[in-house]
Amino acid sequence: MIAERGGFALHVREGAARRGTLTLAHGSVETPAFMPVGTAATVKGLTPDDLREFDTRILLANTYHLWLRPGRETIEALGGLHAFMRWDRNILTDSGGFQVFSLESRRELSDSGVRFRSHLDGSEHEFTPETVVAFQEALGVDVAMALDVCVKLPAAPGAIDEAVRLTTAWAERSAAARTRTATALFGIVQGGLDEHARERSARDLVRLDLPGYAIGGLSVGESRADLHRVSRFTAALLPEDKPRYLMGVGTVRDMLAGIDGGIDLFDCVYPTRCGRNGRALGRREDLNIKGAAYTRDPRPIDESCGCSVCTTYSRAYLSHLFRAGEMLGPRLLSYHNLALFSQLMAEAREAIETGRWAAFRDDHLDDAGPSSSA
Amino acid sequence: MIAERGGFALHVREGAARRGTLTLAHGSVETPAFMPVGTAATVKGLTPDDLREFDTRILLANTYHLWLRPGRETIEALGGLHAFMRWDRNILTDSGGFQVFSLESRRELSDSGVRFRSHLDGSEHEFTPETVVAFQEALGVDVAMALDVCVKLPAAPGAIDEAVRLTTAWAERSAAARTRTATALFGIVQGGLDEHARERSARDLVRLDLPGYAIGGLSVGESRADLHRVSRFTAALLPEDKPRYLMGVGTVRDMLAGIDGGIDLFDCVYPTRCGRNGRALGRREDLNIKGAAYTRDPRPIDESCGCSVCTTYSRAYLSHLFRAGEMLGPRLLSYHNLALFSQLMAEAREAIETGRWAAFRDDHLDDAGPSSSA
Repeated sequence: MIAERGGFALHVREGAARRGTLTLAHGSVETPAFMPVGTAATVKGLTPDDLREFDTRILLANTYHLWLRPGRETIEALGGLHAFMRWDRNILTDSGGFQVFSLESRRELSDSGVRFRSHLDGSEHEFTPETVVAFQEALGVDVAMALDVCVKLPAAPGAIDEAVRLTTAWAERSAAARTRTATALFGIVQGGLDEHARERSARDLVRLDLPGYAIGGLSVGESRADLHRVSRFTAALLPEDKPRYLMGVGTVRDMLAGIDGGIDLFDCVYPTRCGRNGRALGRREDLNIKGAAYTRDPRPIDESCGCSVCTTYSRAYLSHLFRAGEMLGPRLLSYHNLALFSQLMAEAREAIETGRWAAFRDDHLDDAGPSSSA
Repeated sequence: MIAERGGFALHVREGAARRGTLTLAHGSVETPAFMPVGTAATVKGLTPDDLREFDTRILLANTYHLWLRPGRETIEALGGLHAFMRWDRNILTDSGGFQVFSLESRRELSDSGVRFRSHLDGSEHEFTPETVVAFQEALGVDVAMALDVCVKLPAAPGAIDEAVRLTTAWAERSAAARTRTATALFGIVQGGLDEHARERSARDLVRLDLPGYAIGGLSVGESRADLHRVSRFTAALLPEDKPRYLMGVGTVRDMLAGIDGGIDLFDCVYPTRCGRNGRALGRREDLNIKGAAYTRDPRPIDESCGCSVCTTYSRAYLSHLFRAGEMLGPRLLSYHNLALFSQLMAEAREAIETGRWAAFRDDHLDDAGPSSSA
């Protein structure tokens, strides 16, 4: 099915794991896929050319941050977000709900929306479902997220029910506010760790027949078992013919579990944040590149990785860059970490296509010990 | 003349300005040339591929920093400095004299060498002419600088005379210590702002028939008029058939004056430091990219610049990156600033070749106002 606002074709399944193609206004995205995070219209340290080198098809930017800086008028004046950041493939913008609810004391929630103060200058702003859709459409993004209400875990049942109620109401208003066919609106399922609340949230959002659905409110401090349980449970509530996006995940282990539970899309700051901090991600184990063991190690970060950092630089050199506080270190490790995620997703897609997913998953999960957790 | 330890061919002169080719172990360097500074075995924020994109033929690294971190044994274990940092073109290492003498209270000078404490961990080290040559040869660099004695300006005449005496004695010992023909040893002319001292220093060093000569002890806080006067005066004391390197310069204006005075090689942290701080260099004027005027400016930094930053990104986007504290900003501006210097040098070379140097110089110097000074 290729819909006007972004279509998803499901090619093959193995168990719950899915291999599909999401077609958006700036090209296709083979799924499962990881979306690099470019919060402020830049994936930290990397250029669009870098991201294309490892076949990134879609990246994520953030409504909250771009709304405050540089602001809608600036991005519109420069021809929209793609032109502004010189990225000619797909962009998904988060709605800003997660960020606003992280402000806590600085925000005020009502049925109409949420008022908040900027973390930059204290200025007052209001997000409503309508203004957030209008903002994302003005930026010209390929996927817009509906404004949702996030609650901190653990939360009282009442708080979760209220968040689900408002998130549904806001998703309806978001859908009604759409004016641009090239922007696909995804709804966000909330409900914390409560399966009944997740069911209600999913059921109500699915009625809106949106072009895609996200699972929000996870990866916020709950246990890994809860993350895996609730994401798998929620994915199964969503329509087969729509893409499913698990927000804020992940790590290698969590993404493999997510794919196994039927997730198609992931995003997380983890690979770039690790890259800045000297943590080189691997399929099975990570390296703290500053470790004494690497100071004279001539090997690449990961001998099985085909990225241009691994085919060029030694652990010894990368270790030196971090020890010396050189900015090339974060750049190169961020590149490797994202390239590794891209390769892992390509391998997962191939495994599902060829009926080897269960073996691929088990092979990786057996070894993905605690070192790969956030 | 192509000597075993690096040869210099002077093709044409216009006035004192020279157009030549320096042939070193890792290829040729067309002069005049600017050498990007990669103090700690990395030009801050940029990869070797980046540097090759704007035809960098030689870069500079620093004995003082590499001696302390990662140290000779590590670099040797990784196959030398070229292999360590994955740079297959020429490398010149400064001798560390300038850095050690900047330590002031932490160093102790004698005829045999200079003892100092590391700024990193307080550990004690000694540089002698012999150990510094051996270190640079062990790194496998293409040009090694002889250990010199730098004095702070203004200095008493006695201090300058003593620095010149020791610098000459150390250059002799450096020349005698050489064991590797692929490393060309350059001597450094000292003498402060005193023309008699400069004459003595140059005369004594020229007797050693080294493959190249640098002018040191300038660009350390003296007036621009003094810098230009002393560098021009000193360049004229050096042999026609050897390359001349003005250390620590510079800015567009100072390099043009240097070329006009007969200088072939330059190095300076200025373009990369400016790049990190949001100063975008231009042929005639610089931009503080964080300026309010640029927040919605769709133009490139410099419409006459052919670098990949100027052909890709707007001032508005670059301004946003710096306002948001995004690490891509320093990377992109460092790239542009070095690419601009590379283009400027290529244009200067062509101007000298075609007998248009005087016009080129005047055209640029007329407009190179105070905004281009350090």
